[in-house]
Parts: sequence; C-alpha cells; structure tokens
Amino acid sequence: MKIFKKLLVLLAMLCFIPGAYSQRPNIIVFMVDDMGWQDCSVPFGKDVTPLNRKFRTPNMEKLSNEGMKFTNAYACSVCTPSRVSLLTGMNAAHHRVTNWTSPVMNDATDAEDALFTSPFWNINGLSPIKDIPNTVYATPLPELLKDAGYFTIHVGKAHWGPAGTPGSNPYNLGFMVNIAGNAIGHPQSYLGTDNYGNIPKKTTANSVPDLSEYYGSETFLTEALTKEAIKAMDAPIRNNQPFFLHLAHYAVHTPIMADKRFLQKYLDAGLDTLDAKYATLIEGMDKSLGDIMKFLKTKGIDKNTIIIFMSDNGGLSLSSIRGGTKHTQNLPLRAGKGSLYEGGIREPMLVKWPGVVKPGTISDQYLQIQDFYPTILEMAGVKKHTTHQTLDGKSFVNVLKNHKASDTTRALIWHYPNKWTNDTTEALCFVSAIRIGNWKLLYLMREARMELYDLGNDIGEKNDLSVQFPAKTRELATVLTKQLKEWNAQMPIVKKTGKTVPWPDEILR
Amino acid sequence: MKIFKKLLVLLAMLCFIPGAYSQRPNIIVFMVDDMGWQDCSVPFGKDVTPLNRKFRTPNMEKLSNEGMKFTNAYACSVCTPSRVSLLTGMNAAHHRVTNWTSPVMNDATDAEDALFTSPFWNINGLSPIKDIPNTVYATPLPELLKDAGYFTIHVGKAHWGPAGTPGSNPYNLGFMVNIAGNAIGHPQSYLGTDNYGNIPKKTTANSVPDLSEYYGSETFLTEALTKEAIKAMDAPIRNNQPFFLHLAHYAVHTPIMADKRFLQKYLDAGLDTLDAKYATLIEGMDKSLGDIMKFLKTKGIDKNTIIIFMSDNGGLSLSSIRGGTKHTQNLPLRAGKGSLYEGGIREPMLVKWPGVVKPGTISDQYLQIQDFYPTILEMAGVKKHTTHQTLDGKSFVNVLKNHKASDTTRALIWHYPNKWTNDTTEALCFVSAIRIGNWKLLYLMREARMELYDLGNDIGEKNDLSVQFPAKTRELATVLTKQLKEWNAQMPIVKKTGKTVPWPDEILR
Repeated sequence: MKIFKKLLVLLAMLCFIPGAYSQRPNIIVFMVDDMGWQDCSVPFGKDVTPLNRKFRTPNMEKLSNEGMKFTNAYACSVCTPSRVSLLTGMNAAHHRVTNWTSPVMNDATDAEDALFTSPFWNINGLSPIKDIPNTVYATPLPELLKDAGYFTIHVGKAHWGPAGTPGSNPYNLGFMVNIAGNAIGHPQSYLGTDNYGNIPKKTTANSVPDLSEYYGSETFLTEALTKEAIKAMDAPIRNNQPFFLHLAHYAVHTPIMADKRFLQKYLDAGLDTLDAKYATLIEGMDKSLGDIMKFLKTKGIDKNTIIIFMSDNGGLSLSSIRGGTKHTQNLPLRAGKGSLYEGGIREPMLVKWPGVVKPGTISDQYLQIQDFYPTILEMAGVKKHTTHQTLDGKSFVNVLKNHKASDTTRALIWHYPNKWTNDTTEALCFVSAIRIGNWKLLYLMREARMELYDLGNDIGEKNDLSVQFPAKTRELATVLTKQLKEWNAQMPIVKKTGKTVPWPDEILR
Repeated sequence: MKIFKKLLVLLAMLCFIPGAYSQRPNIIVFMVDDMGWQDCSVPFGKDVTPLNRKFRTPNMEKLSNEGMKFTNAYACSVCTPSRVSLLTGMNAAHHRVTNWTSPVMNDATDAEDALFTSPFWNINGLSPIKDIPNTVYATPLPELLKDAGYFTIHVGKAHWGPAGTPGSNPYNLGFMVNIAGNAIGHPQSYLGTDNYGNIPKKTTANSVPDLSEYYGSETFLTEALTKEAIKAMDAPIRNNQPFFLHLAHYAVHTPIMADKRFLQKYLDAGLDTLDAKYATLIEGMDKSLGDIMKFLKTKGIDKNTIIIFMSDNGGLSLSSIRGGTKHTQNLPLRAGKGSLYEGGIREPMLVKWPGVVKPGTISDQYLQIQDFYPTILEMAGVKKHTTHQTLDGKSFVNVLKNHKASDTTRALIWHYPNKWTNDTTEALCFVSAIRIGNWKLLYLMREARMELYDLGNDIGEKNDLSVQFPAKTRELATVLTKQLKEWNAQMPIVKKTGKTVPWPDEILR
C-alpha cells in the first residue's frame, strides 16, 4: 500500500498547486463615485424619503433583498482618501492622502485659505513602491489577492495617484487587468460620441482611456465599463479561477450629463433638467449593477460571488454644479461631499454573500471603508499575509454572518486637515470627527470649536450637544486626540503663527 | 484495488483541469514596427553590409546565436495587413485589410490617384464580431490560445482596427491584458516628458494610452513598454500558467526621435542627426529584447519560452522623413516600406525555441507572416480548434525542427490594390506579387506590365527577366491569378472605364 499512500500525497499536493482552484468566492466591489446616501430607491434611513421616491434603482433594491443593507457605512468625505483606504486598509489620517489627488504630480489640490495652510500631505497618493516622494507606501489589497491566486480586475475610475507615479497605474497595484483607470478623478465626457473626451486638440487631462471601441457610438460611459467588466470576467470564469473585480464607475461624478436612455421619464416626472440628468446617471449605474448580476446568473456563478456595493463619499451638495438648494441633496443628512457631516461621509452600502449573508437583512453597525481590506481578505480565505503598512480596518465578516452583531464601543475617525472648496461652512474644511456608539464629535479647527451630536436622535446633526454634555465632548476629544497622535496625523498650520493647529483636546482646556 | 484505480482516474483528471498546467511553452512574439531587413548588426543576407555595421543590436545577435535565423521571412508591405495576417492566419488578399487602417472609423487611407480608384477594402480592419461593416470577421489567434489556457498579453502597438470598432481593443481579440494598444499606428511622441503625446489640448489621435505612471519622466516609450511587459508576465509565471506575450513595439516607426541613452555614440560615429536618432530607436528596441531575455532567465523560464522576433513591414525608405538617399535604406534590397520589392516585405526574423530549434542555425525557407498563426497553435499544442476564417498560413514547425527542411514549390502571394503615398514608382502602389522558389513575379497594375526576378542571383531585383523567360512569367502569373480569384481578391478600378483592373494572366494574352 506504499504506492497508495504516495498517490494520496500526490493528490493532496495537486489540490494545492496554484491553478487547481477550490471554490473560493468571487468578490466584486461595485464602487460608485460621489453617490449620496439617498440617491436611490432603496431607503437607507428609517423612512422612505422624497429622495428615495425620486430615484429609480430596481437592481439595488434586488441586491438589498438578496443581501444585507448597511445603514451606517462610512467612507471619507472626498474621493482619493476613500480609495486609498480601500486599497491599504488604513485610515486617511494614517495614510495621509487626506485630499483628492491631482492628475498632475506634485500638485496639492487644496483651495487657498486666509487663515490656514494645509499640511504637506501625501499629494502623490498611494505607492506600491518605496521612496516615491509624498506617497503612502503600502501593500495594495489586490496584490495580496493576486498572490493568493485570485484573478484581479480593475474597471473604471482608479484615482490612486497622479500621472507620473506608479500608483497612477492599476497594474502596479496588483490588478492583472485594467480598463479605463489612471490618474483622473472624473471623466471629461460620459459620451461615446465625444470619445469620452479623447478628441484631438480638445483633450483635457480627464479624457477616459482604453475605450476606443466605443468611440463615436451612443454607448454611455457606464454602459461601456459594464461591458468591459463582463468581458474581463470571462477568462477567470472559464479557467475556474476565483476573481476579484473592482468595478469603479465614473458615475455619478460631474460632469452631470444625461444618459438619454433614461431621461424622458424623469423630465415627465417634473424634475428640472440638471436633476433629471443626475437621475439618469444613477439609473445607468443601477442598470450596470443589474447587468452584472444577470451575467453572474447566466454563468452559474451567482451563488459563489460576493457583491459589495459602495460609494466613495457623500453626494455632491454644492448647488452651483449639482443644482437645487445648497446642502439639501442628502436630506435628512446634513451637507454633502467634502463635509464631515453625515451627508459627506455616510454611504449606501449593500453586501450580497450567498450562503453567508441572510437575504433582506439590515445592519446598523457603523463601519468605515478601510474595513473592506481585512474583510475581503477574510472572504477570500487569505489568512497569512504581510503588508508594509499597519492596518486600521477591522473585518466585518462577523456582522455579515449575523446582522444583529453590534459593537458600540469602537471609535471611527475622520481627519480632513484640508480645504476642498472655497466654502468654509458646513464642516467642509479643516475638520476632524469621531464617532463612538451614536455619539459624534466634530472638531472644527478653523473655528476652534467642537460640536457634539447624538446620531440616534438627530441624524441631521441639527442640535449641537457639546455644551450640554461637556464630559462626553471631552471623552470623544480625548480618544480622537490619542488616536490622531498615534497615527502622527498631520494638522493644518496657522498662517499667522506658523504653528500647527492645536490637537482636539487642547482646545478644551 | 478498486479505490486505487479510482484514485488514478482522479489523478489523471486533476492533471487536466484548467489551471493544473502542464509544461506547455510560453510564447513571445517580439514585434517591431517598420524595422528593415538590414536595420541591425545581425546579417540577414549573405554578407555583413555597411548597414549591419552601422547598427548595434547585441541582443538580436545573442538571440540569433541561441536560435534560428530566417533569411527569407516576409510580411506585407504596410502595417495593418501584416498585423491582421498574424492574428487571422489569412493572406491579405483574402482578409482584404490590404492597407493600413486609420485611427478613425470608415476612413480609407489610400492616397488619391489619377488613374485608379482603390477597391472598397476592409477599411475597418479585423473584427472578432460579425456584421461590422468593412471588417474581416475572424477568430483571432489569442482567443484560441486563451481558450487553451494560455494567459494572453498584448503590450504596445495594436492597430487592428479604427476607433469605434471592436477590433480597436485588444481585449476583444482574446488578450487578457492590454497595455498601450488601441487604434493608433504610431506614437505622437516616444518621450515620457511629452506624456507620449497625452498633453491636454495638444493631443492628436496618436497619443499612447495607459502609461500615465511614466508621464513627465525620462522613460522612453520602448523602455516603458518593456517594463510593462515584464510586470504583466508576473501573474502567469507565479500561477505556473503558460503565457502568450505579444510585445509589439511602437519603435522604430516615425516620428524618428532620439533615445538619448544611446545617441552620442552614433553621432560620434559620424551618422547625421536623423540617422543617429533612428539608430537609437533600433538600439532601444534591442535593449528591450535583452531585458526580456534577462527577465526570463531570472525567473528560470528561459528554457521553456519561445521567442519569435519579427517586423511588420520593410524599413521606411522615403527620404523625406527617413533621411538619406531615397530607397537605399534597405540595401541590398530594393525600395522599402510600402513596396512589394524585397525592401518593403522581407523581414529580420529570429526564433528561439530551447530544446527544439538548434542554436545558431539558419533557414533560407521562405515564409510569410500568416504562417505564424498555425505555427504558434502547434507550438502551444492546440490541435483541435474552430475558426470563422479559412487559414492560408502553413506551420513552419517542421523547419524549426530541421533547419534544412525546404519547400521550393510553395507560392507566397502579396496583393496591394492600394496607394500608400503619392510616389507611384518602385512598386509602391497597385501591385501584386508572387514568389515560388527563387522566382518572383510582380504585376505592376498601373503600368499594366510584369517584372520577373531570380532572387537567388538578384536579390536587389535589378534585372527584369520577364522578356527573357516568358514561360516562367506566364507560369507565375497563372498561379497568382488562380489564387487571387480563389480568394475573390479585390482589384483597383480604372477611373476612365469604371472597370476593374485585369487579372495578371489577362495582360499576358
């Protein structure tokens, strides 16, 4: 029986050679850009709102019914910080890519401020290679997944670093396929008839790469990316290799352009033109989700594919470009993109994981985008790994397994020592925040004051309780300070004195 | 022993599941653009020429020493026809993409002619999808390799179809990775400091996609593509999956720009500036070949990797952009790119296949680029396959196994019912040609006459023997006519009469 034993050993070995893949789940991160918490027909709050009724997202509804809805999911207030957190598992205060990165290298994107100077943050984004100036050097999530035998695909907006840095190219971040991702943060045009901006002599830095086959056609950018994602999944499916797909839509970021396929019904419903256009961007994105889900079913892999739906920051609430009344676009949440009020950071998040997540469940557990990193590794069964960075994220697989799982002691932290736009109101610049349980504290550095909210009773952050609850204010400020110091977080500089802004707990003394 | 048998069956099955890859060879097609037969220090003719002494290509020399040198390898006279032949296994007369395709859809690139109109050729190139107007619908080679479990990579110039068609995107042609390939046929710039042409508002259709990480750097395009190719090979190597890499350099096509790393020595050697620049394009390409070979060795896969070196047409010989004396750039061959004289179609070709090709051998067997298709399939062990097209190519694996193998009865055919440039001399427009053994016949349609050459004694095509050997002329014209008719090849139209140009054998009557 010696030969029998040898055969068994050989058999066992064969099962572990790369390529002889087990039934590890495929994982899709469906990332939307600038989508607000209320920009869909799925209610993420307690009630169905007028905004929920405005938008049509039947496929998100389907995903919600088949998976878990997260009502307290967070990202950062602007794009690149969230995307870098996703790929590094680090808090933005820690990775220091605290603001969005320019398409051009060494270019700080901060708006000019009369009082403060932004710190020298990592303006060159994420780098998988050491010693690139002003970058965070980290092991990107897809790299680990690739190492573990996953076929890793990026489609759509990348925006992890400016042109001229390794991080601008998804191929350097562990993706084996990259379609349409580079240094840019929004498309020059959503229209195939505009070649997505690739018009000789009229091109800006924001022309979308890689989609030449759709040039001159009526194919809307969202549709083109969906088609490309579906094509890219073909190879790993045929090879029976698990895949990781990061489908990162440019939608629904500005420029707000009509996806004609959906426009008329919104106009008929009485929406003004800009609002109707925005609704078509949303519905086109939702159709993409539906197309992906249908494709998975057709291929018979829907039962073994996890879908994580997420947005990278709150909905745009600057009326100048978004239309409507300023900072009302995410109601009942306050403010929008760029702000550390809930409107800027709370995200529509859904997770479908057949066999693990109970369909139609809701979790109110708060979590933040860097949690995706350890969660996805756990989903993929990647237990041993080494990373250059220390992870801040915490896996929420336990929540996915039990939607009632709750941790109200954890502190979530946001840190934005930057200025996004000229507007200095509504927590849009130079601000840190912390949430523990339902308590949320904002440190408005420019005004040198705190605001405290009880999100359980005041999701709209209307009633500042900082004076009423000084002990709670101090408690949160202390935790916030401790953590920021531990990360060696960067603070803005006061122009007048040349000194950095005080730590949160210092202004309470 | 029943269980023992079952185990054996299971074992056998496991060995055949996709992913549990056998030792099938990796295959690299190293394709150079517009490189002439003499543009290197490897002598492809009988003697070392002054041109061989001008260029420095030590890595080609190494490859030649380690593999087989083909002295009679042919492509088409311009770019896209050759590239489509490579990916379809079809002769250009058959696939009807007889001229280079424009970056823009539905745009015939033919120069205006006073006497003839070009036929309505497949101006939209190759299509993997049916019913795309003016395309050849075919199963691309990489598709079959992907189906067979190969990891398929395209890096560099694609140029299989104009923007707006599926063929413009290598992802539609069976490539799992595409870096820098789309509808364009040459780069706007080779310089990283020019962002390879991606300069907002200054962009032409020819800006090179996907290389944003090198923007602003001193990285020459050839170097960037090499680095990307090396990165792309990483995944299949780690997964022990065989790969097919089509590394298609933009070099040495115009614009002739200096690769500064190599410039000074050519200037010191007395070359004029333009010529020196061209020599740096060549040396940069050769360094790329060396880097790839070194990488394979480092990874320990050089013994299991086939390298096929090829160019897509003859060296440019129009002095206006290439410099020098017109049509002398490929001496001893006559004329250059665009011509059906040898200078336009004969290519520097090398094949290294460890364990199969005897190192340092030379084959004088004539072959044509469509032969790559069945050859590569045979190399990859792909026996059963179905294609939409009928193949014209013939595998030359037998030659690789025995450099003395010879077939002097085969007919090679070229067909160019087009006009590339305003020059109507030197077989540059409206011409067909056939080679059988050492006999070559050209049918110069515009002049309604034949030329016959004995390449064995007259490689420079100086002595037209058509009058001297009328029977041979008739014999070749007959074979040429028969084959063109069989392919239903397109002929130019005589403007005056509105009729198509006579078949070759018709003008002999």
